[in-house]
Parts: sequence; structure tokens; C-alpha cells
Amino acid sequence: MENQKEILHIVKAGGRVVEHLESMRLFLKRFATLPSPKILVHGGGILATQLSEKLGISVQMIDGRRVTDSESLKVAVMVYAGWINKNIVSNLQNLGCMALGLTGADLNLIESVKRKAENIDYGWVGDIQRVNVPMLSTLLNQSITPVFSAITHDASGQLLNTNADGIASHLAIALSEKYETVLWYCFEKKGVMLDVEDENSLINTLDVESFKNLKDKKVIHSGMIPKLSNSFEALSKGVGSVVILHENELGKENYTGTKLVLKHNAN
Amino acid sequence: MENQKEILHIVKAGGRVVEHLESMRLFLKRFATLPSPKILVHGGGILATQLSEKLGISVQMIDGRRVTDSESLKVAVMVYAGWINKNIVSNLQNLGCMALGLTGADLNLIESVKRKAENIDYGWVGDIQRVNVPMLSTLLNQSITPVFSAITHDASGQLLNTNADGIASHLAIALSEKYETVLWYCFEKKGVMLDVEDENSLINTLDVESFKNLKDKKVIHSGMIPKLSNSFEALSKGVGSVVILHENELGKENYTGTKLVLKHNAN
Repeated sequence: MENQKEILHIVKAGGRVVEHLESMRLFLKRFATLPSPKILVHGGGILATQLSEKLGISVQMIDGRRVTDSESLKVAVMVYAGWINKNIVSNLQNLGCMALGLTGADLNLIESVKRKAENIDYGWVGDIQRVNVPMLSTLLNQSITPVFSAITHDASGQLLNTNADGIASHLAIALSEKYETVLWYCFEKKGVMLDVEDENSLINTLDVESFKNLKDKKVIHSGMIPKLSNSFEALSKGVGSVVILHENELGKENYTGTKLVLKHNAN
Repeated sequence: MENQKEILHIVKAGGRVVEHLESMRLFLKRFATLPSPKILVHGGGILATQLSEKLGISVQMIDGRRVTDSESLKVAVMVYAGWINKNIVSNLQNLGCMALGLTGADLNLIESVKRKAENIDYGWVGDIQRVNVPMLSTLLNQSITPVFSAITHDASGQLLNTNADGIASHLAIALSEKYETVLWYCFEKKGVMLDVEDENSLINTLDVESFKNLKDKKVIHSGMIPKLSNSFEALSKGVGSVVILHENELGKENYTGTKLVLKHNAN
């Protein structure tokens, strides 16, 4: 650890957690136990899909990624930045956590660029270009807990749907210059499994080499690959630690989950 | 003016302004010309009604006030705090204004209490109890422009639909201890009219006595009465100035509109 930087926890909450107010509240109790400074990032794809269906908006997926037309963008902003984000904030306030709900547009915190339509036009989807580190540090220094929904903007007035895993890793990388960052990806599984069907096949520690091998052998499947690629990139760009774990394990001293490292025995 | 306090502009944007992205953008250009510190407050009832209709949620009104059941609250939070609020923020950022989109839940800025069901049960509607002046002042001191949607919370995890006019006046009253507050109610009419049909019947300056007389004579009608009652209460509680004007007049040096005063020649 260089210069004894302060530890900053950045937590990505999985979709299931925010799907129901009750599971959200249980998760937030765990999140609230983490020491400050900390940041929460959430999506909400399942609720967005439900609202789209009620409104008769067809949800188009290409290679597992959602295509965001104008109507889908509106739904995403309403569900992520509106309903889910503000319920999280209100519940965290009730738990004594000075939460502030955000998109990348607020305080110009995250600037993205609309993904270019090459082979596939993903629509109003943003790729992150810049994180406003001075402004975020100012918030964190005031004991404020930023809660990011998966929406950014292009700094020219256009909101953009943005992958929540990517927001979490970009925030962690950018803030690593000021903090010892710990990135927690919470989801509905125990961590990275050698066999998804076998609860006992959890990988406790995974390094880059092993990841490549498991990917080549098709042991690690499509859904997990971008999350892990993101995570190893984060580690190589200064993030102190990345853990993938079940949402119920967050905040436990002896958590069960998969800790990612660049090399075994490296830390 | 006591102690030469700094001037703080608090602007309530009327429903029509935020109904279409194009009219919103024009209005925000005018808002952006106001000197900082400043605060924007907006509703969005028309868009909320449209979404409710699409979702088959019946909109119940009692005495011109919306009843907020659970589904209507969800729509209000999605439309006000999500779609409208974040589009305003992104557009203000594009205009060089360091905007931060908020509800009363964020940073615990506005605490309300759910309106008791006596004769009428308005549902999830909040009456404002407390404004977090130290936190708001901290934001304003950092040249941040708060943008409030018409949602607050009860500080126990419950979001509440809250009248935007009321949010504007409560903010103005609470911040008057630190600032010389100027409250601007922007809407689709020129101001307070002696005859709604006659464009030339604008009242340039209205005091409490005249208001009471006009109310007794039924010259001033139902929709305008709560806005004016709120405004005179604000003036009596320390707000420096209240103006009701057409949205196109905001930011003009020689605006046309109705300036409210407690007594004529009082200031």
C-alpha cells in the first residue's frame, strides 16, 4: 500500500438486489455497515424490462446487450435514476448514511460518448470517457455517500444508458489516484464457480493466468467474462482489490467470494 | 436589506416548461443567465398524467389536487426525479451551470410528513417539515446549482409526492436566514390578471390587502389562490421578494409580471 491512502469501498449492487424494495432494504443494511468513504453503483435492468413490457416497448437485445432506443432510454432514466435510485437514497438516509443519488450528468461527474454504430447500433448507450475526480473527492470528504444509477451523459445535454459494472470499475480506477480502492461486485451467486451447478466449486482467488486458461477451456461463461475482464483491467490500472461475491456476504469480515489478483502471491 | 446578504434566486418552473424537451431547453437558457447562487424547482404533472394513462393507472383528483396511491407515487418519482430532473441537469451542464439534481431524500435536504387522512386521504403526499439549511448552504457555497424535483421523503425510507410551489417557498423561507432570497414563480400566464381574458389587465404590484379584496370579490380564482397565499406567507417569513411571471420573462432586466409586496410602498 503506497502512502497509506484512505480505503474507499465501491460497491456494485446486482440486479436482483434492487428488484424488490424488501431485498433492497436488506442489502442496504449490509452496505450501511461498511465504513465510509464508500460509493454505491446500481442498475435495474429487470424493472426496466418490466416497465417496457407494460408500455408495449419492445426490448431488443444483441449478444446479451440491450439496445437503447429513445423510448428505452426514457424508461432506463425513469427506473434507474428515478424510482430505484431515490428509494435507495431514502432508505440509506433512514440508516444514518448521508446518501446522494446521482447520474453522470449531476455535477458533470461522469462524461461518456455515445457508442458509434459500426456493425451494431446500440442506440443511446454511453462509453465512459472521464470521471470528475476533484468533485467526487469533495463529496467524499464531506462524508457524503454517492449512489450512482447506470445513467451518464455526453456533456452536451444527452443522457446515455451506461453499464453499471463499467461505471463501478471506471470510478474505482479514477479514484485510485487518491484512495486505496476496494471494488465489490455483488450478485446472486457465491462468486466465480468452476462448475455453476456445484455450490462447492467456488474459486477463492483467481489470477489473470488462471482466468485466461478457464476462459480458453470455456469453464467461465459469457455472462461472467466482461465482468472479469473489467476487473482485471481495474487491478492493472491501480485498483487495490476486486472481490466478486454474493450480495448477502457484503460487509462480513470473513466473507465467502472470489478475490481477483493479478498474480498469485502478488498481494 | 439587512447586513447586505448575498442574493439567492429560487425559481419554480411551471408544468408547461418541462413538458417538452425543446421548451425546457429554451427556459433553461434563460435560467442559466441568472447569476449564482440559484436554485431551480420543477414539477411535471402533465408528463406524469400521460405516463399514468399509458400504464392504465387512473388519476384521481380531489379539489384540483392529485391523490397519490402507490402506483402514482412510482410514476411521480420516475417522471419528476428521473426523466425531467436528469434532462434538466444534463442541459444545464451543457450551458456551463454546475447543476445537481435532487429530491428531498438526497442529503436529507427536505423532510416531510405524510399528510394525515382526515376528510380526504391524499395518499403518499408530503407536507414539508424541515429544510437542511447547512447542507444546502454548503452546496451553494461550492457554486453548485441545486435542481429540485417535487419529491421529498419522511426520513424513514418513504418517498412522498410534494407540491413544487410549496418546495420553492419553503426553500426560500428557510434560506432567508442566510440569503436575500428572490422567489420567481414562472408559468404560462403574464402574472396575476384582473381579467384572465384580458391580456392588458396584469397587476404589476399586489399587496396583501388587495389580494384579500380580490379574493373576496372572486376576481382571483382557485388555481392562483394557494400560490398567492404561499407567496405572501413567504414574504411575511423573511423572503425578500416574490414575483409571478411568464416563463419567457425570467432573467430579463425589465420583466413584465406581478411583484408581490406585503404593503404598497413597503419596499
